[in-house]
Amino acid sequence: MDNFVFRNPTEILFGKGSIAEIASRVPTSGPVLFVYGGGSIKRNGVYEQVRAALKAHKLIEFGGIEPNPAYETCLKAVDVAKKERVQFVLAVGGGSVLDASKFIATAALFTGADPWDILRTHGSNVTAALPIGTVLTLPATGSESNGFAVISRRTTSEKRAFASNHIFPIFSVLDPETTFSLPTKQVRNGIVDAFAHVMEQYMTYPAEAPLQDRLSESVLQTLIEVGPKTLSAPRDYQACASLMWSATLALNTFLGCGVPQDWTTHMIGHELTAFYGLDHAETLAIVLPGVWTHQLSRKREKLMQYGRRVLGVDTAETAIAKTEEFFHSLEMPTRFRDHGIAADEAAGKVRARFVERKTTTFGEHGDITPDAAAEILRLRA
Amino acid sequence: MDNFVFRNPTEILFGKGSIAEIASRVPTSGPVLFVYGGGSIKRNGVYEQVRAALKAHKLIEFGGIEPNPAYETCLKAVDVAKKERVQFVLAVGGGSVLDASKFIATAALFTGADPWDILRTHGSNVTAALPIGTVLTLPATGSESNGFAVISRRTTSEKRAFASNHIFPIFSVLDPETTFSLPTKQVRNGIVDAFAHVMEQYMTYPAEAPLQDRLSESVLQTLIEVGPKTLSAPRDYQACASLMWSATLALNTFLGCGVPQDWTTHMIGHELTAFYGLDHAETLAIVLPGVWTHQLSRKREKLMQYGRRVLGVDTAETAIAKTEEFFHSLEMPTRFRDHGIAADEAAGKVRARFVERKTTTFGEHGDITPDAAAEILRLRA
Repeated sequence: MDNFVFRNPTEILFGKGSIAEIASRVPTSGPVLFVYGGGSIKRNGVYEQVRAALKAHKLIEFGGIEPNPAYETCLKAVDVAKKERVQFVLAVGGGSVLDASKFIATAALFTGADPWDILRTHGSNVTAALPIGTVLTLPATGSESNGFAVISRRTTSEKRAFASNHIFPIFSVLDPETTFSLPTKQVRNGIVDAFAHVMEQYMTYPAEAPLQDRLSESVLQTLIEVGPKTLSAPRDYQACASLMWSATLALNTFLGCGVPQDWTTHMIGHELTAFYGLDHAETLAIVLPGVWTHQLSRKREKLMQYGRRVLGVDTAETAIAKTEEFFHSLEMPTRFRDHGIAADEAAGKVRARFVERKTTTFGEHGDITPDAAAEILRLRA
Repeated sequence: MDNFVFRNPTEILFGKGSIAEIASRVPTSGPVLFVYGGGSIKRNGVYEQVRAALKAHKLIEFGGIEPNPAYETCLKAVDVAKKERVQFVLAVGGGSVLDASKFIATAALFTGADPWDILRTHGSNVTAALPIGTVLTLPATGSESNGFAVISRRTTSEKRAFASNHIFPIFSVLDPETTFSLPTKQVRNGIVDAFAHVMEQYMTYPAEAPLQDRLSESVLQTLIEVGPKTLSAPRDYQACASLMWSATLALNTFLGCGVPQDWTTHMIGHELTAFYGLDHAETLAIVLPGVWTHQLSRKREKLMQYGRRVLGVDTAETAIAKTEEFFHSLEMPTRFRDHGIAADEAAGKVRARFVERKTTTFGEHGDITPDAAAEILRLRA
């Protein structure tokens, strides 16, 4: 186990009816920017619940955050936040709305000349942000309880992440009932996203961290058990609750304490979304088995442990195959051809992007080069 | 899964050398009350590391906190804190020093007439406390990352717990090297204490919380794996690190989110310490198997799950026997006779205490009466 620092101050309000509790958690009587997405919250009752809970507050609405939230849209919200002297940002939706809100809350107080610098520097220049609260309606990204956000710039096909202690939500409501009306595809995406988050912190090499290994395996096993249930019975409260809590733990940074981490799959996946518009989770399902196959000799011990403990299989190769089968059982494709994309072309584009951006190498050994990324993608035709 | 609220703002600084990082985390340049126990920190180098890290601060020392920290001793520290206008309390030691420091930090700002009221009301009247930081030297109680403290009043043989959001440490240093020189008995006690903490949140009845079950099983399995190693090889850094992180997770309140909890063993155990001076963990090792045996029919499903998943055995009865064997492997006795105490006498005293105090019943079903507590103890002759 390596040294680490862990801190996660987000208060979780978990369970049905919890939206009603948020008023006492909003630390200001000033104007609140109420950020949401495409309007599903107006169809499933969440919008009304939020308005009722915050009836004593002045709510400034900003809807229309899109999947893979656009930098350009966020800047419009920042203008509103400044003009209305907003004191708090309430994000109501999935990871995209939450990530957008984190960027908006940061950019609203950013004193640099160009807000893109927040993303260009991965957040290292962030010194403040408006306080943020969230009502999560889609278990997937873990954004409800971490200090990360990912924003896409449409004009340049760039997708960038930033991190800061200032963007941990001060509270997050996780009410499984808000997920009952989600489209199947979004639930599927969320399961794969959470699964991949655990894997980025787990599927590396043995590091004398038996507790962290078992905690990660606990989340993987639960996702495999309850994920399919949430698809076949979308109003099964208990299954939805376990999925929601699993997705939060998958990326609240607890599992990765003191252990090596990979993140190759996410780095490559972000580029595939930027180039081809694939859903984030769709990119992960393509890339993850490719990373494992490419790094088979170095990940073999952990692949075998995962196989034995989680899947009940004996070899690394079978563990990879069974993982693809799990994705397929969720109706999640795992090959470029399923999306009509030529693997060679994707490999070339991603390689060129990494070379151009002088991206430092990544992976738990820090040696996945642009060429290696291209090799990984060519395995996924 | 039931509704829950979870918040744990403590920053964990984990790993060797981390004491050097604390100065930047102390939120004041004012006087710091430096609380410790019997002086072991002066023999193992921790005292010097703390003084070096905080060389720019005025440190007011208060040593001599005893195991099962005495209310009477804490009041002396409160006088010092008030007189010296202390702005921060730094606890350096095990759970007793940490719990004492939490009480001192609370009582220093308490405006009621009698500080015992903090404990009499279990903390419900606490509205403020001085900020607290800790350097943990004994993995056991979880006090380094929760809002609980237990204090003993010597003059009346009472042991009482209180809880408050105000007493979460703002930071805690967990450096496994500080545990290398611990007496074997204290390491043994810590393993059993952490094990029992998990069990109080786990060994109840199935509650449709598969993630929480697996997380708890992860900690139990790790304690069973690394616990004996830390006894046989006390300078095995990695084993000590896994024990330390396991003990923190065992009672940072995460495992108990949304699931029924028991705590019968602790309620009864506290009385045995108060009456007979047994170490806290010694009482848990006596009482826990008794609670399971007494409640066998209602805990059978979870006992079998624990047996299957953690111990590799098939029946509830064998799971109980194997747990006692695990305690014995740590040289931890599990019967009153091992301590020369008559079970009947202990049962009578504890029953009378609960009756006299009009203790509400406890356990996950809320129906363990004073009579039931006596029955449990009579099983442990």
